[in-house]
Amino acid sequence: MVVTKFNEVLPKATAKRLPQYYRIFKQFVSDKVDRTNSQAIAAKLGVDSATVRRDFSLFGELGRRGYGYDTTALRDFFGNLLGDSAETNIALVGVGNLGRALINYRFHDRNKMRITQAYDVAGNPLVGTKTDDGVPIYNISDIQKNLADANIETAIISVQSDRAQEVADLLIDAGIKGILNFTPRRLQVPENITVQSVDLTSELQTLLFFMQDKKETADKL
Amino acid sequence: MVVTKFNEVLPKATAKRLPQYYRIFKQFVSDKVDRTNSQAIAAKLGVDSATVRRDFSLFGELGRRGYGYDTTALRDFFGNLLGDSAETNIALVGVGNLGRALINYRFHDRNKMRITQAYDVAGNPLVGTKTDDGVPIYNISDIQKNLADANIETAIISVQSDRAQEVADLLIDAGIKGILNFTPRRLQVPENITVQSVDLTSELQTLLFFMQDKKETADKL
Repeated sequence: MVVTKFNEVLPKATAKRLPQYYRIFKQFVSDKVDRTNSQAIAAKLGVDSATVRRDFSLFGELGRRGYGYDTTALRDFFGNLLGDSAETNIALVGVGNLGRALINYRFHDRNKMRITQAYDVAGNPLVGTKTDDGVPIYNISDIQKNLADANIETAIISVQSDRAQEVADLLIDAGIKGILNFTPRRLQVPENITVQSVDLTSELQTLLFFMQDKKETADKL
Repeated sequence: MVVTKFNEVLPKATAKRLPQYYRIFKQFVSDKVDRTNSQAIAAKLGVDSATVRRDFSLFGELGRRGYGYDTTALRDFFGNLLGDSAETNIALVGVGNLGRALINYRFHDRNKMRITQAYDVAGNPLVGTKTDDGVPIYNISDIQKNLADANIETAIISVQSDRAQEVADLLIDAGIKGILNFTPRRLQVPENITVQSVDLTSELQTLLFFMQDKKETADKL
């Protein structure tokens, strides 16, 4: 468990920003920016600089007064925190449009994560073939054997909602410890399994809420 | 601007949970559950019940002591807050795998949001056709005229990263006020424009971080 310098559990909101900090520092390094400050980081992240300073203060002294933050040091710090030193292989279940989009998403271009296996039901004509990038698409009935052989602990579910729980149960039986769930269905899983859900409807409603909020604020001015 | 009963701006973390509360109460109503409590809501949301009670307390008295929360009343409360009483038409730019997945996502089945127009560059053979659901796919060069005619203020960007800013500029010129951005690129937009980003790499890294965190906690026990 990642704890702060105060020996407390890292707040969930901060934890969710870690990948964004990592992305921003990688960008700074590749743009040959050697050092930066909380304002510049905040602007890239779309939050206020107090949030950045509060997040960073939880880890102790990441910067130096009058100097700011060393971008290479911070990139490595967040990369280590996120375990981005080791390769992570991922299995994907559900090779519809969304599944194909995710396989093509090229997570690996900028990170050490890679979808290396895909699955669908026998009726899908893609089963038994490979994607252009060489990712094999297997029959879902082979998943238990394949995952054990490949030592994969992470999976993406991009099937129809009504199959999501069934697929999750299958994945957990096959040794998966973490699931990225692209269906609106909330999954029931044992306590030792981690689920991260991407709920596209919620994302769209959040956008509409903030649009309306901005419009009402503007109307009042 | 939505303000709390204390006349403060609603915390962003709370605002982001509103669509999830709405979804949960719709589910309760359709499951014929008349009343519920913060523990049950928290369990469905995957947060602790103190978070739910704190969120709800910002809006005043949503429940009654000894009774709990009336699911129909709360569904309507969150629906109104999210503006889900009016139909929202949405344009999508980028009809690749991800774009097609989003068009097929059927947001409208459970909400009043609907992708009604799609766009891509002239080179895409789908331009000039319609999807199975009847969504027309237009040439991006027609966007300014079409959007004005259709009174659409919301758009989804699902193009390649390196085209994202250019498409955003085009959309804003055409009168779009809100963008759901599926590319990892952070968009530069004027202050009156709202952007909600779905960063798939960050979602996956967050999952890996929490998996690692859970593993380390278990190892210590």
